[in-house]
Amino acid sequence: MHILITGAAGMIGRKLIARLVKDGKLNGQSVERLTLTDIVEPQKPAGFSGSVDLVAADLAAPGIAQKLIAPKPAMIFHLAGVVSGEAELDFDKGYHVNLDGTRALLEAIRQTKDYKPKVVFTSSIAVYGAPFPPAGIPDDFFLTPLTSYGTQKAISELLLADYNRRGMLDGVGIRLPTICVRPGKPNKAASGFFSGIIREPLAGMEAILPVADTVTHTHASPRAAVGFLIHAAGLTREQLGPRINLAMPGVCCTVAEQIDSLKRIAGDKVAARIKRQPDELIMRIVAGWSERINAERARALGFKAEATFDEIVKAHIEDELGGKIAA
Amino acid sequence: MHILITGAAGMIGRKLIARLVKDGKLNGQSVERLTLTDIVEPQKPAGFSGSVDLVAADLAAPGIAQKLIAPKPAMIFHLAGVVSGEAELDFDKGYHVNLDGTRALLEAIRQTKDYKPKVVFTSSIAVYGAPFPPAGIPDDFFLTPLTSYGTQKAISELLLADYNRRGMLDGVGIRLPTICVRPGKPNKAASGFFSGIIREPLAGMEAILPVADTVTHTHASPRAAVGFLIHAAGLTREQLGPRINLAMPGVCCTVAEQIDSLKRIAGDKVAARIKRQPDELIMRIVAGWSERINAERARALGFKAEATFDEIVKAHIEDELGGKIAA
Repeated sequence: MHILITGAAGMIGRKLIARLVKDGKLNGQSVERLTLTDIVEPQKPAGFSGSVDLVAADLAAPGIAQKLIAPKPAMIFHLAGVVSGEAELDFDKGYHVNLDGTRALLEAIRQTKDYKPKVVFTSSIAVYGAPFPPAGIPDDFFLTPLTSYGTQKAISELLLADYNRRGMLDGVGIRLPTICVRPGKPNKAASGFFSGIIREPLAGMEAILPVADTVTHTHASPRAAVGFLIHAAGLTREQLGPRINLAMPGVCCTVAEQIDSLKRIAGDKVAARIKRQPDELIMRIVAGWSERINAERARALGFKAEATFDEIVKAHIEDELGGKIAA
Repeated sequence: MHILITGAAGMIGRKLIARLVKDGKLNGQSVERLTLTDIVEPQKPAGFSGSVDLVAADLAAPGIAQKLIAPKPAMIFHLAGVVSGEAELDFDKGYHVNLDGTRALLEAIRQTKDYKPKVVFTSSIAVYGAPFPPAGIPDDFFLTPLTSYGTQKAISELLLADYNRRGMLDGVGIRLPTICVRPGKPNKAASGFFSGIIREPLAGMEAILPVADTVTHTHASPRAAVGFLIHAAGLTREQLGPRINLAMPGVCCTVAEQIDSLKRIAGDKVAARIKRQPDELIMRIVAGWSERINAERARALGFKAEATFDEIVKAHIEDELGGKIAA
């Protein structure tokens, strides 16, 4: 099987590649070729014996998508995109990458003869905007994004569904919840603290908590996110029906419950590294975000997230810290 | 006030122009200039003393939207679009006109300095796709279009909302129900019979009913549609809030109830001109359409449709037939 991955240099992209290389197959077929693309050149995956193309390119630029699609990869994971904060600060860049890039990919597929790949697209719960039903967001809740990023993801979902409906591809869009614990350095994303309050204390560093610990949010680990992608790749047209864009499940909990998990797993001393420092701006931004995602259809279709936040913390310790906590 | 109308040569466009000319003002301001554009040259409105520009052009073609926007019209009615059937048959044309045209208009607005017009956009209930809740479609129901036309309208709504949210314009999108009774000749649209079974018998001609008379649908007259546009133009940002795309109200009734209205108003002899001739294809298409639109927010915001289908039939007789029925 030949697999194309856009956004291959990103965090989820790298973890997906590592999983595919480790498994050696997808949907029961052996992975023989990988085309990995991103705006910067992706790393060559270690331990992969098949053929690899590394392409540093702007997917929205003329001719790029056609070139990537020409060898007809049977499976496409379309992960490429600029993140929420950047799309909000740079209007043109956000629409160029997140909308025009997606459309260029879909058009290249449509214009390639005798070709109907499976396309797994990572959307986001940013397609939703407050206010929300207190019982959680149902699968048939409307899309009222409150960011340009969310708008671009919602539009890409609609395009994917139309190309799917017309038989030009087999598509599935998965709306990722907040990925936690995100590895790496702290960043300036408004959502950064959800990961930061777990990641930094476990690494022996202080972390800032800018919101009240009553804030409720839905999380899935990077490991679960990769699991969603792999599971989505195996779903058939018949299983999905016409409504191919699905909110993914996650652990819905308060910040206080996140901190309780950290205490249970790493002890009070580690949890004491969290410093409460309220930030009005971040509080206001977070107030517009979805809290509880019901994800009933995704669960029924077999998508699996962690059952508790404890599992999310443990996944981070295993996958990123080699099992070790900074005491 | 300077008003720009796209799709000015279409049925709703022509009726809107006639209404604006008759009223002489909009939102309490006198209408001094009209820019009327469409893919074919719109007619010069009769009885208008202000200045008129007639522009036959493709809104999506490079430079056209900028030229239309350059004199900074304070009010824009964006009605232009290819219809459902055509957008389904011609994929490229549908996306070009319905998506790229809208985006070109919005971009021209964004790139014009010191300019923030009111933009009223005609969307459609085609943004919805079956299955629907039996109690009717609520305002927070998700968008799962089952046509390329519906997809293009849904995407345009999302774009309009994002440009509105960022303060680049004051936008409102109105999802029109099926317009009935549509004047003019019968056409091949799958929805044509909803108007045909009223229009043709009233004009002394036979009409084909291709579906069961239990089919339920939501209708508004062309007069009501123009009323929606005028009302939308007067709504403020504060009244609308961030959710600016609204399903419009209408009369929800069965085909049998439509025929009962015709009988009450024009007599059994006229209604006998309807011939039942079931058509499997049309039945299948119509089965995917929305039946009952609740439109609670639109009603609360003061949008008014007819209260009964009798009123819709009477509006057609008054507005199109000079009060006369072919006995």
